[in-house]
Amino acid sequence: MEFNYPNGNKFVPKSISDKPMTKRSVQFGKRGMTLEDEINNSNQYYLSHDIAVIHKKPTPIQIVKVKYPKRSAAQIQEAYFRQASTTDYNGVYKGKYIDFDAKETTNKTSFPLKNFHEHQIKHMKQCLNAGGICFTVIKFVKLDRVFLLKASDLFHYWDNKDDGGRQSIPLVNIEQAGFEIKYKLNPTIPYLDVVDQLLNDNPFI
Amino acid sequence: MEFNYPNGNKFVPKSISDKPMTKRSVQFGKRGMTLEDEINNSNQYYLSHDIAVIHKKPTPIQIVKVKYPKRSAAQIQEAYFRQASTTDYNGVYKGKYIDFDAKETTNKTSFPLKNFHEHQIKHMKQCLNAGGICFTVIKFVKLDRVFLLKASDLFHYWDNKDDGGRQSIPLVNIEQAGFEIKYKLNPTIPYLDVVDQLLNDNPFI
Repeated sequence: MEFNYPNGNKFVPKSISDKPMTKRSVQFGKRGMTLEDEINNSNQYYLSHDIAVIHKKPTPIQIVKVKYPKRSAAQIQEAYFRQASTTDYNGVYKGKYIDFDAKETTNKTSFPLKNFHEHQIKHMKQCLNAGGICFTVIKFVKLDRVFLLKASDLFHYWDNKDDGGRQSIPLVNIEQAGFEIKYKLNPTIPYLDVVDQLLNDNPFI
Repeated sequence: MEFNYPNGNKFVPKSISDKPMTKRSVQFGKRGMTLEDEINNSNQYYLSHDIAVIHKKPTPIQIVKVKYPKRSAAQIQEAYFRQASTTDYNGVYKGKYIDFDAKETTNKTSFPLKNFHEHQIKHMKQCLNAGGICFTVIKFVKLDRVFLLKASDLFHYWDNKDDGGRQSIPLVNIEQAGFEIKYKLNPTIPYLDVVDQLLNDNPFI
């Protein structure tokens, strides 16, 4: 049985999140939501309005021990988190393949590149090479500002960092190369508006 | 550190599979591999040859209890399998969004529709509506025959089954409406050859 909010978004009970309960510092963002919540909300809006089908991938888990009790659900009794080999979000919009990651930083003047792993960058390069639309959504939590940065721009900084380049991307550069996304009521983060802009500039991406 | 097989495929140690170890009946297929193994192998081939980026999604898990021991990895001590709300595979090929599920049957004359869940069909309808390329790969294990069936053809049978229609798709109909995929050495199941055919017939899908 599925329930929907009046705005058409799907009701998802908190308990079925795949995130473990961890203590986290209080967020002073506009709605007290994490970037992940905001993206998930936006994706739910896009889905329920037949605009795009974009989901967060489940966290990959290595299962070691499972118990199969009679007359009840299989219980995983020992498992470990695995490092994801891809980005967190992918899906389809106007027939195009969309692939991105969402990252928060508490920094105020630059985005530290250590937020990315080598395999995520490799995955984005592979997707871009196969004709996908790849980017990262970056939130400066303390500034309450959200940007979309094209993967190709991210690679520029990533590839330079091991050649004595900066270990972070200055905010001023993100302001120049990226696209600021202004919060809306629905969808919370209208990132597909930027994707439309990218598609208009180059209909072949 | 990553290792590759001589054919360029990535070496993935068995232990990091997200599937629990379960007893399964012996497979008498060509290579003793499950359809999932064959698809994963094929995807690895497509990835390592810069042809397409298509991954199996991790199994969704609901985590209840996690222990954080000092100086070692977080251990999940209680978790349950959740029903996936999407199909198993998605990715990008020639810029197009690809989405599919892979199903085995031991039947010899028809494919039972109970192999699908309502939410998987719903997801495929949403993807198709957003311009994605959606299909299912069906393996008749005892016949060692593999078919690609377009999602739109699957919907036809699915939507009819509740109106007094058949609960399965006869093999003869799959032979007519679907595309048989012949095993190759590499990739094991060259399903993107069929996708090429679909794209040639209708470059706008």
